[in-house]
Amino acid sequence: MTVVTLDIAAPAIDAVVAAHAALRAKRPLVQALTNVVSSNFVANVLLSAGASPAMVDNPEEAALFAGVADGVLINLGTPTAAQVESMRLAAAAAQKAGKPWVLDPIAAGGLPWRGQVAAELLQFKPAAVRGNASEIIGLAGLGGGARGVDSSASPEAAVPAAVDLLAHARAVSASGPVDHVVGRVDGRTVLVKIGGGSALLPRVTATGCALGALVVAYTAVASDPLTGLVSAHVHFSVAAELAEAVASRPGSFAAAFIDALDAVDETSLRSRAKIHPAVLIP
Amino acid sequence: MTVVTLDIAAPAIDAVVAAHAALRAKRPLVQALTNVVSSNFVANVLLSAGASPAMVDNPEEAALFAGVADGVLINLGTPTAAQVESMRLAAAAAQKAGKPWVLDPIAAGGLPWRGQVAAELLQFKPAAVRGNASEIIGLAGLGGGARGVDSSASPEAAVPAAVDLLAHARAVSASGPVDHVVGRVDGRTVLVKIGGGSALLPRVTATGCALGALVVAYTAVASDPLTGLVSAHVHFSVAAELAEAVASRPGSFAAAFIDALDAVDETSLRSRAKIHPAVLIP
Amino acid sequence: MTVVTLDIAAPAIDAVVAAHAALRAKRPLVQALTNVVSSNFVANVLLSAGASPAMVDNPEEAALFAGVADGVLINLGTPTAAQVESMRLAAAAAQKAGKPWVLDPIAAGGLPWRGQVAAELLQFKPAAVRGNASEIIGLAGLGGGARGVDSSASPEAAVPAAVDLLAHARAVSASGPVDHVVGRVDGRTVLVKIGGGSALLPRVTATGCALGALVVAYTAVASDPLTGLVSAHVHFSVAAELAEAVASRPGSFAAAFIDALDAVDETSLRSRAKIHPAVLIP
Repeated sequence: MTVVTLDIAAPAIDAVVAAHAALRAKRPLVQALTNVVSSNFVANVLLSAGASPAMVDNPEEAALFAGVADGVLINLGTPTAAQVESMRLAAAAAQKAGKPWVLDPIAAGGLPWRGQVAAELLQFKPAAVRGNASEIIGLAGLGGGARGVDSSASPEAAVPAAVDLLAHARAVSASGPVDHVVGRVDGRTVLVKIGGGSALLPRVTATGCALGALVVAYTAVASDPLTGLVSAHVHFSVAAELAEAVASRPGSFAAAFIDALDAVDETSLRSRAKIHPAVLIP
Repeated sequence: MTVVTLDIAAPAIDAVVAAHAALRAKRPLVQALTNVVSSNFVANVLLSAGASPAMVDNPEEAALFAGVADGVLINLGTPTAAQVESMRLAAAAAQKAGKPWVLDPIAAGGLPWRGQVAAELLQFKPAAVRGNASEIIGLAGLGGGARGVDSSASPEAAVPAAVDLLAHARAVSASGPVDHVVGRVDGRTVLVKIGGGSALLPRVTATGCALGALVVAYTAVASDPLTGLVSAHVHFSVAAELAEAVASRPGSFAAAFIDALDAVDETSLRSRAKIHPAVLIP
Repeated sequence: MTVVTLDIAAPAIDAVVAAHAALRAKRPLVQALTNVVSSNFVANVLLSAGASPAMVDNPEEAALFAGVADGVLINLGTPTAAQVESMRLAAAAAQKAGKPWVLDPIAAGGLPWRGQVAAELLQFKPAAVRGNASEIIGLAGLGGGARGVDSSASPEAAVPAAVDLLAHARAVSASGPVDHVVGRVDGRTVLVKIGGGSALLPRVTATGCALGALVVAYTAVASDPLTGLVSAHVHFSVAAELAEAVASRPGSFAAAFIDALDAVDETSLRSRAKIHPAVLIP
C-alpha cells in the first residue's frame, strides 16, 4: 500500500475534543441491537462515556425506536432470527430518518448465515463499520472479493478491505494494537491511525462491542462519520490507558475502565491521545 | 396536590427494620422475567441483599415456577413475543397462587406495543408497580387518562398517576432523587417520600430494574405491599449512600453498591434512612 | 458408601499443573450455549483463566460452530425453544466431531420440560457433567431412578447419582463446600474430593455456570475428561481463595475473582490446591 503525507483536514485532536464536548452536551440516545454477552457492558460504557443507552431490539418496536433514537448500533454477536428481522427494520428506519447507524460485523466472514445478514445490511448504508481486522477483511470478502478471513490479521492488513467497504459506509475502522480508520475527506481516501489503549482490553469480553456502541454515540454528535469514528477510538484508547494505570488484571481493569470513560476530559484527551498524522491512500 | 399530616400507621423505620430482618431470615426466592441488560445485575443485587434469584422466563416453565417462587418480577425492558407470553402466564399464576408480583413498566408509556402488554398485565393485580416518574405517568395514561409521557417528569409530578394506579396495584412508587411511594393504610391514601440515595445510581445501567427486583423480595416477606415497597426503597437508598462513600465514578460504584447491599444492617438503616413523615392524599 | 484407599493413577496436583500449562499454551475456543444471566460473566471467566469464549447459540450456526470450537458448554439455565434446538444440534455435532462437550443441568430435576431436554442431551455423551448436588441427583433421577430432588443435598449425598451418570458421561462433579468428582481410571470408579474455595462464591450469580465453562476449556486440553474436570475445579477453588484474601463482600469479590483466575499459576496451584487422596468406589 502506497501512502503519501496528507495536506488536508483529516480529523485530529481539535476535532476529537470538539466531538467529546458535543457528546457530553447532547447525551445522544443510542439504540443498541447487540449480543447478549455485551448488553450490560455496552449500556454501562455508554452511560459512563456520556451517552444514553436503550436496547430496543424486538421486531415490534425496533423501527419505531430507530426514529426516536439519535443513532443505532447493529452488532452481529449472537443473532437470532427475530433479532435479525429487527436489525433489518432498524437499519432501514435509521436510513430513512437520516440517523447514523453502525455495523459491528462479528464473525460475519466466518459464519455464512450471519455473513449473508451482514451483506444485506450494508445496503442500508451504515455511517460507520467497526470490527477487528479479520472481521473487516471477512465482511469485505462477502461482497465478492476473494480476501477470505484470516483470524490473525493485523489492522494494517485490513486497510484494503476497509477501503473497499467505503462503497457502503462513510467510515470504517479495524481495531487492534494500533487502530486503523479510513474515510473520505474532500473526495480523497484517508487513513488515520490511533495508538495507545491497553493490552488488557481484549482480556475483557465485549470491549470491542462497547467501542462499536461508542462509535454510534459519536457519529450522532460529530460533524461527520469519520470524525465520529476517530473520536470514539481516541476516547476509548485514552480511557484504557487511564484504567491500566490503576489496574493490572482483567476484573479490576473492567471496573477501572468504566470509571475512566467517565473521567476522560479535554486535558486527558490532549495529553494522551495518540493520533498519527493522517495519510492519503491513492 | 393538597396533603395533610398523617396520624395513622404508615410504614416508618421500625417497619423497615422488621422487613429487613424478615428478608435476611427467609431469603425469598424471586422469579425474574426481566430484560437482557439487567439479568446479571438483578441476580447479583438480589443475592447480595439477601434473596435468591431465578430467571425462569420461557412459556414452558414460567407459570409452574411462579407457583414455586415467593414472588415474581415482570420487567418490560426488552420484551420479546415469547417473553411476553411468559409474562402473562407468570402473572396469572402468581395471582392465582396468592404470590406477590411486581410490574416494572419500562417505557410502557412511550412504545405502544409494550404499552398494551403493560395494560393487560395490570389485570392480574400486581402487589406493586415501580418505575421512574415518566413511566408511572405513562402507565397510568394507558388506562385512558390523558397525561401522556414527559421524560423529564419529577417523582412529585407522578404522584397523581401513581394514585390512579392504585386501582390495580396495592402500592406504587416513582423513583427519583426523592422516591415517592403511595399506597393505602386503613382505607386512606398515603404518600411516603424517601430521600438519600446517590447521583451515581442512574449512571449505572439496570439499577432501577434491580430496585424492582428488590421490591419483589420485600413484598414477599413484609406485612403488606406498601411496607415492602418502602422497605426496598430504603434498603436501596442506604446502600447507595454507603457505596458513594467509597466510590466516586460509575464502575467502582457498581461493585461498591453490591457490597453495600450486603452490608446494610439495622444500624445503618436506623442511622441513614431518610423516610419523610407520611402524608395523607385526600 | 464404602471406599478404599486408591493405589492407581487418579488425577492429582501434577496432572492439574500440566493441564493448567496446556490451557495457557493452547487457549482453547469454548462455544457456550448458556443462560442470559451468565453469558457476560462466563465469557470473562474464560478469558481471564486463559481460554477464548464464543457464544454461538442459534440453530442456524450452532452445529457448524461446534465443529470449529475446541469444546462446547450446554447450560440449561434459561432455555428457550430455539436455544434447546441449538443445544441438540451442537451436542450432536460435537459428538460427531469428537469434541468434548459439558452439560450443566441447572434445575433439570425440578422442572419437567428442561428435565426432558437434559435426558435427551445425555444421549450425545457429554465428556463431563457439572452441577450442584441437587442438580446431579435430579439429573440422575430423570433416567428412571427414584432419588428425586433434594435442594439441600450435600455433595457427598450426590455421589451415588454422579456414579449413575457415568453411564452417559466420562466424568461427573457435584459442586459444594467440598467438590466431589467421579470418573473411571483403568476401569475402576474413583472419587476425587476438592476443598478450598470461598463461601462468597455462591453469593455471586453464575459462578457455577462459569465453572462449567471452565470445565469445557480444561477437558479440551487435558489428557482425559476426569483430569480436565478435576483441574477446572482446582483452578476455580484456588482463584476463589486468592480473591477472598482481598475482598470480603460479593461485589468486590466478583472483580477480585476474575483477577485471581488470571493470577493462578503453578506456584499458587501447588501451594493452595486441596485435592484429597482419591478413593475407589466399589
